[in-house]
Amino acid sequence: MPLRLDSRDPGFPAAFDALVNARREADADVSRDVSAILKRVRAEGDGALADYTQRFDRHDLDASGWAIPAAERKAALAGIPNSLRDALELAANRIATYHEKQKPQDSDAVDSAGVRLGARWRPVDAAGLYVPGGRAAYPSSLLMNAIPARVAGVERLAMVTPTPDGVINPLVLAAADIAGVGEIWRVGGAQAIAALAYGTGRIAPVDVIVGPGNAWVAEAKRQLYGVVGIDMVAGPSEILVVADGQNDPEWIAADLLSQSEHDPTSQSILLTDDAAFADAVAAAVARQIPQLSTAAVARASWDANGAIILVPTLVEAMPLANALAPEHLELAVDDPDALFALVRHAGSVFLGRMTPEAVGDYVAGPNHVLPTGRRARFSSGLSVLDFMKRTSFLSLDRAAIGAIGPAAVSLAEAEGLPAHASSVARRLVS
Amino acid sequence: MPLRLDSRDPGFPAAFDALVNARREADADVSRDVSAILKRVRAEGDGALADYTQRFDRHDLDASGWAIPAAERKAALAGIPNSLRDALELAANRIATYHEKQKPQDSDAVDSAGVRLGARWRPVDAAGLYVPGGRAAYPSSLLMNAIPARVAGVERLAMVTPTPDGVINPLVLAAADIAGVGEIWRVGGAQAIAALAYGTGRIAPVDVIVGPGNAWVAEAKRQLYGVVGIDMVAGPSEILVVADGQNDPEWIAADLLSQSEHDPTSQSILLTDDAAFADAVAAAVARQIPQLSTAAVARASWDANGAIILVPTLVEAMPLANALAPEHLELAVDDPDALFALVRHAGSVFLGRMTPEAVGDYVAGPNHVLPTGRRARFSSGLSVLDFMKRTSFLSLDRAAIGAIGPAAVSLAEAEGLPAHASSVARRLVS
Repeated sequence: MPLRLDSRDPGFPAAFDALVNARREADADVSRDVSAILKRVRAEGDGALADYTQRFDRHDLDASGWAIPAAERKAALAGIPNSLRDALELAANRIATYHEKQKPQDSDAVDSAGVRLGARWRPVDAAGLYVPGGRAAYPSSLLMNAIPARVAGVERLAMVTPTPDGVINPLVLAAADIAGVGEIWRVGGAQAIAALAYGTGRIAPVDVIVGPGNAWVAEAKRQLYGVVGIDMVAGPSEILVVADGQNDPEWIAADLLSQSEHDPTSQSILLTDDAAFADAVAAAVARQIPQLSTAAVARASWDANGAIILVPTLVEAMPLANALAPEHLELAVDDPDALFALVRHAGSVFLGRMTPEAVGDYVAGPNHVLPTGRRARFSSGLSVLDFMKRTSFLSLDRAAIGAIGPAAVSLAEAEGLPAHASSVARRLVS
Repeated sequence: MPLRLDSRDPGFPAAFDALVNARREADADVSRDVSAILKRVRAEGDGALADYTQRFDRHDLDASGWAIPAAERKAALAGIPNSLRDALELAANRIATYHEKQKPQDSDAVDSAGVRLGARWRPVDAAGLYVPGGRAAYPSSLLMNAIPARVAGVERLAMVTPTPDGVINPLVLAAADIAGVGEIWRVGGAQAIAALAYGTGRIAPVDVIVGPGNAWVAEAKRQLYGVVGIDMVAGPSEILVVADGQNDPEWIAADLLSQSEHDPTSQSILLTDDAAFADAVAAAVARQIPQLSTAAVARASWDANGAIILVPTLVEAMPLANALAPEHLELAVDDPDALFALVRHAGSVFLGRMTPEAVGDYVAGPNHVLPTGRRARFSSGLSVLDFMKRTSFLSLDRAAIGAIGPAAVSLAEAEGLPAHASSVARRLVS
């Protein structure tokens, strides 16, 4: 049974605090294993990749092929039903259009002191994209990770994916073709992340690594942060639905279950001002679960991590929503903008009764790679900026250095850095 | 003696590769120590802080005071020479003006499918600022770290700094007052980073931690990345000067030494097309070093990590510059823009003969917190964006979900996620 709370109960603050601070992330101590894998791939390169792939994915890379050729991707795209190809293309186009607007502006101007100042954005040279194998091989995630890199102008996009027993999901290959992925390597796990970061004989190193993965993949990215750029530290998915009693309880139940079905560690929370509606949603969830092919996962997640919280008014729900800083926030009311104005921390917000979170997972356009585990307090969803970097620049002439140089000399001397002072002062007396 | 290379020598590619891949970062195994400190501060809070401060900084926080009151900051500002106060204020104003232009635009628009899409930026609630104690207590760094947070609109700015033997640099206090820092806590090291990330009885937790520090501080930030946002993984400072023979060798020597004097691990490299000029710069460096109060550090750095590389033309220098992806890049030529067009990777670029890097350290405006150790390939200098986060949002009406919803249903079914499909499909039939 999910947690039931009422914000008017005397025990609420403590119970809500416990909910906010609950850690749903696996505590598995993978750190040492990952560290050993990274070290070995760095030292031994492709030999280590072949060995780990034999061990974990049960196939011989030399026999099955290290990379998947472009022809195989194109064949996969040609082989899927038209309706799916159309859906993937609609999604890809909408994602590209949304992300185009994220491209940053360069600046270059001379100020009143005669100093020319600016900033110039450029894409990274190469991005690596991790795509999980097996059950979590989602073509939608591939699009969400690859398209922002392409929009940023990244020239080389290298994908790695485990192919357990040599098998790969054709829908993923089709999505890779649509997204313009240039290379697909049949390696997965921490060893694939190491190969992308350090490079091997076959796989050239990349500058940024993105994409979801299991605990080993996530830990490998965390350990390599700084050697390469990474998208984010990702945790279990979560949704917070703020809904009044005017919603169809079946719709809201389906929205909650759309997170619960991802993983037993996922979290779905309903905040409502209507006790009868809360009961109706709970009943609808219980009714819908057995109808799902994902029932076992959805039930495990809902029972362990689901919550229904009753509040006197939905305005009073918003500080609770901000404390949870959810990955996904639905505002299922007639005037969602009034509540949205009170939102400080959320990865993505879904406004109104006709905007289920799942539409954003696939085809709406904004990225579905979003901060989890309260990280929306300080981080943002994946964007074009994750694949670009900014170079600031500066140019002074004799007059400009005359105007601002003396202050630099004073500060350098006060900081005890005489060569700093001298490099400016020599140009002042010229 | 610094390294001397000529790109026409047969051994050059190997020697240059070694230079590019040389690790100058301390290999000290601080990871376990830091991990223990973080754990203890998380569990014991202020008690652990008091104990570590007694042990490492040799003072009793209960006696010396945990926080530095605002009056003490104001007194420090009133007590410094007018010229220094003016220099700090000039720097602060120019930094604020430059960073104001980084504030991102929100977006909110309805597309042709009737889908409302947008993104909204908000500052984090609280930022933590680490300021080193002792020799590296630079007021300029404080301004560079604090002002972008203030420009972003961060409401709470908490500074931590060690005060060895209870002593603090009054110039740092003065800069803190100018920068609008709200709290100053007399704690340093990994324990201060832990306090900012987890919070203690006295120190409320923050969302983002920025600022330079020693190996323990850097490792603490790395380990807490994901619990909080951090600015970057920082390494030793570096400068690459691309200069033709028309420069004053004394100026270029001073520019090189302005990095060398920071730390023995700093790196200064000259790329030039003029062998006689290269010799003249080397001689000028040798002449200038003994005149510096920082001579010992500058000599150690220049001898161990300095390099002079001769190239046939400066255009041919640019691929080398991109491979080094330097933190600071000076282009000391008459037409720096022609070379700047060839720059792919650099933290900050200083254009022309009258733009020494040191002017950018203090008063020019762009941030001096920049990616080191070839990280300019994928990361950027500190900016207002490091203190903000973006929430995407979405709103559909009946027509809009009718237009794009069926594609979402197809993809959700293909991915084996029936609750995702159902949450969209229920709204289609209504």
